[in-house]
Amino acid sequence: MIGPAMATMLSVIATDYPLTPEMADSFLRSAVNQSFNRISVEGHTSTNDACILLAKPVSEESSPVAESSLASFRNTLHEMTLELAKKIPADGEGATHLIRIVVSGAATDADADRVARTIAMSNLVKTAVAGADPNWGRIVSAAGYAGVQLAVEEVSLRVNGLLLFTNGEPAPFDAAAASQSIRDGFDTLIELTIGQGAGHSAHYTSDLTADYVRLNADYTT
Amino acid sequence: MIGPAMATMLSVIATDYPLTPEMADSFLRSAVNQSFNRISVEGHTSTNDACILLAKPVSEESSPVAESSLASFRNTLHEMTLELAKKIPADGEGATHLIRIVVSGAATDADADRVARTIAMSNLVKTAVAGADPNWGRIVSAAGYAGVQLAVEEVSLRVNGLLLFTNGEPAPFDAAAASQSIRDGFDTLIELTIGQGAGHSAHYTSDLTADYVRLNADYTT
Repeated sequence: MIGPAMATMLSVIATDYPLTPEMADSFLRSAVNQSFNRISVEGHTSTNDACILLAKPVSEESSPVAESSLASFRNTLHEMTLELAKKIPADGEGATHLIRIVVSGAATDADADRVARTIAMSNLVKTAVAGADPNWGRIVSAAGYAGVQLAVEEVSLRVNGLLLFTNGEPAPFDAAAASQSIRDGFDTLIELTIGQGAGHSAHYTSDLTADYVRLNADYTT
Repeated sequence: MIGPAMATMLSVIATDYPLTPEMADSFLRSAVNQSFNRISVEGHTSTNDACILLAKPVSEESSPVAESSLASFRNTLHEMTLELAKKIPADGEGATHLIRIVVSGAATDADADRVARTIAMSNLVKTAVAGADPNWGRIVSAAGYAGVQLAVEEVSLRVNGLLLFTNGEPAPFDAAAASQSIRDGFDTLIELTIGQGAGHSAHYTSDLTADYVRLNADYTT
């Protein structure tokens, strides 16, 4: 039960960095939106999610914090939440791949996110990765039903860096090499550009294997 | 690649019943909306769907058709498209169950449809049925993230007629009997009432088995 709204997760982050409640709230929301809210296993939203940031309070005696130090803290918080978030689909039931889906060129970031999530929720895309199948048709068609504006002649796709589809047409590619690149690694990278604007998003998901089914069919939660 | 917008399907229906083009269009749209547009296997919308109705044209010489005869033709068309539509998820890759999801008591029919589709798309619900697991938690939580107004204390659930959840609480039920009723039949009936109004919808889907994964992971489309 790992879904896109924080996934099933209780996360507590502690720091001795001095933060006001407003800073802590703002930094954590931003970090969570780029990490725990960008992952899924099968997209079934859970009912118990929490991410808590405990920090040292800013007191009268605290020396003022430099802007550069604040920016550095913020970046570290982003990196850390992303590392933690990726561990969830990487450890998904029966997962043999962690799939990173990067969508760029959407009209807006929200559109890019919608396309990335739709690809991430497609059982056909997830089984293709499990089977090391560089199946551009399943990925491009999932983008097509995501409900955002796109023109197929502007769509291009790379899997693990190999160009499979360019400007609306399948590209000539070495299918055996593409398949091998999926089979050989735990990480699979799907990059889709849709040529509508500057909207960008990334989403992480697991592949779908027969073990996922067995693990979820054979016990009662 | 079986999704909710007609699914992957080319269907041709022929009749010698006399119809004007307007009647044929109206009758077919209505029938398709209640049948081919209410089914899914994994919800991956296909790119090639069509349903065509060929009828005898109404000519100058045609005798006028009685209202009751028209109504009867319309009902028959509805029944026939539904029978054909159900065969698609029933024959879904690796399917061991045809799941009928009936949602009633939604604020609107569109809300009921959204809840039914969300349950139908949940891999956790579909694996539970494959495993003959009367898992009310997965069904009710899927309804909860469908994005429609509901209050859990108004929600009740029956599976194969057995009351599993009533007014927001799990009902006392014979888990072994409920499991047996799923295991024994090919058809599984999920009935959810959400107490918001008179909105109603039904959706048909297949369960999710390890064979689905094997069939979709082991070949390239």
